[in-house]
Amino acid sequence: MLTPDQRIYPHATGLAAKTVEKRQDPQELVFYSGWFCPFVQRTWIALEERGIPYQYKEVNPYMKEKHFLDINPKGLVPAVEYHGKALYESLVLCEFLEDAFPNHTPRLMPADAYDRAFARIWIDHISKAVVPAYFRLLQAQEKEKQDQAREEFYKALGQLCEKRKGPFFLGEELSLVDIAIAPWAVREYILVEHRAFKREDVPNGWKEWAELLEKRESVLKTVSEREHYTDIYGRYLRDEAQSEAAKATRAGRVIP
Amino acid sequence: MLTPDQRIYPHATGLAAKTVEKRQDPQELVFYSGWFCPFVQRTWIALEERGIPYQYKEVNPYMKEKHFLDINPKGLVPAVEYHGKALYESLVLCEFLEDAFPNHTPRLMPADAYDRAFARIWIDHISKAVVPAYFRLLQAQEKEKQDQAREEFYKALGQLCEKRKGPFFLGEELSLVDIAIAPWAVREYILVEHRAFKREDVPNGWKEWAELLEKRESVLKTVSEREHYTDIYGRYLRDEAQSEAAKATRAGRVIP
Repeated sequence: MLTPDQRIYPHATGLAAKTVEKRQDPQELVFYSGWFCPFVQRTWIALEERGIPYQYKEVNPYMKEKHFLDINPKGLVPAVEYHGKALYESLVLCEFLEDAFPNHTPRLMPADAYDRAFARIWIDHISKAVVPAYFRLLQAQEKEKQDQAREEFYKALGQLCEKRKGPFFLGEELSLVDIAIAPWAVREYILVEHRAFKREDVPNGWKEWAELLEKRESVLKTVSEREHYTDIYGRYLRDEAQSEAAKATRAGRVIP
Repeated sequence: MLTPDQRIYPHATGLAAKTVEKRQDPQELVFYSGWFCPFVQRTWIALEERGIPYQYKEVNPYMKEKHFLDINPKGLVPAVEYHGKALYESLVLCEFLEDAFPNHTPRLMPADAYDRAFARIWIDHISKAVVPAYFRLLQAQEKEKQDQAREEFYKALGQLCEKRKGPFFLGEELSLVDIAIAPWAVREYILVEHRAFKREDVPNGWKEWAELLEKRESVLKTVSEREHYTDIYGRYLRDEAQSEAAKATRAGRVIP
């Protein structure tokens, strides 16, 4: 008998399905993905932005296959297999792609040491403040807790937006800071529909930035049809989801 | 009227005081420190390891001065002022020192892209699993919660130790992975004295590694006298501390 999470829709749809279709040939770099996962989408966007050849493999994180667990015992997606060795963690993978493929353009981290550190500070803020607040708002059941979580989400996003140089976070060019937040811009409609979230209520121009991110080709190419996200996020809205992010949020723990 | 946290002992003592004394001259890089803070000590160790010239400035994080808040509105230590611009976040600062001072040796991150990503994965594990478990154990009041937190701390540390190549994490040379955990090896005696923690009960050779880290010259040079740590950690043991780490741990939130 399968749990609801195990019965997850088995593959990408829409434009993401077309991208998957083009990335079936064996390559030195294998990308282990879950089509629905925002953390996965970060690495997927970076791969597509930089034109790095990769082979796409779908993993159902609730029913992992043996080879995947052999190379990656923690079993997390996104993961990458490169020359037979595994790596994981979405943001570590994005930096790895910078280090391992220096000749692919565009570079997504600035060359200047100060600017790199500035980017990493705000990527860290996304990980520690923005993303946890998103999940708390999504999973909050009582109205009072939803109101509190919504304010925290506005605040964390607003602090990030305040530092945006525009149009992208670091200026004219897309960077890993944009990529770190883009998957949550894509998945924000769930909060609009069910948690009284309004993009225009976030301080410092989030609406304009979020719309720019959603329209980026690499983002569009890695997004599936909305109905399949809605099916998954229904379990978060009822606080029944069993992903690592959902369980950590419920327990007041760090998202692994 | 000062709170207990504001009455914190005002400066480094012991070997750390000698280091502070040597680092008073103005330099292009100003290091804003709190002598007692484990996050600060990471950056301090990296500065000393690599022989980077810096000017040491002590900040009482509970009574911040105007210039410090002007350049660094979040008010967190460790922070660095470099050519008039501020950066913060202990691990971001360690990577910044690698990027900004490439000719200072030793380098603390490996040159190979895979090895760098491997190091970042385990630094991330220290941030997300080991350090939160340390603070949960320190602040847990009831015996049952202490027992649970101690097991979590053993597990998180043991997972890290399992990947150590030895003698240091990545092999023969010290790296940022060692530096990311070293300040907690220094501060573990508090758990031994008050939380029934035993170094030898951590799986996979933590005792041997921790003893190696504690004896490293850059670690010794950045450690104050034990009595002054004990004064501070008493407030954690009674769950009365008001640091950002203490408050986040109490609220089940991410340590900022």
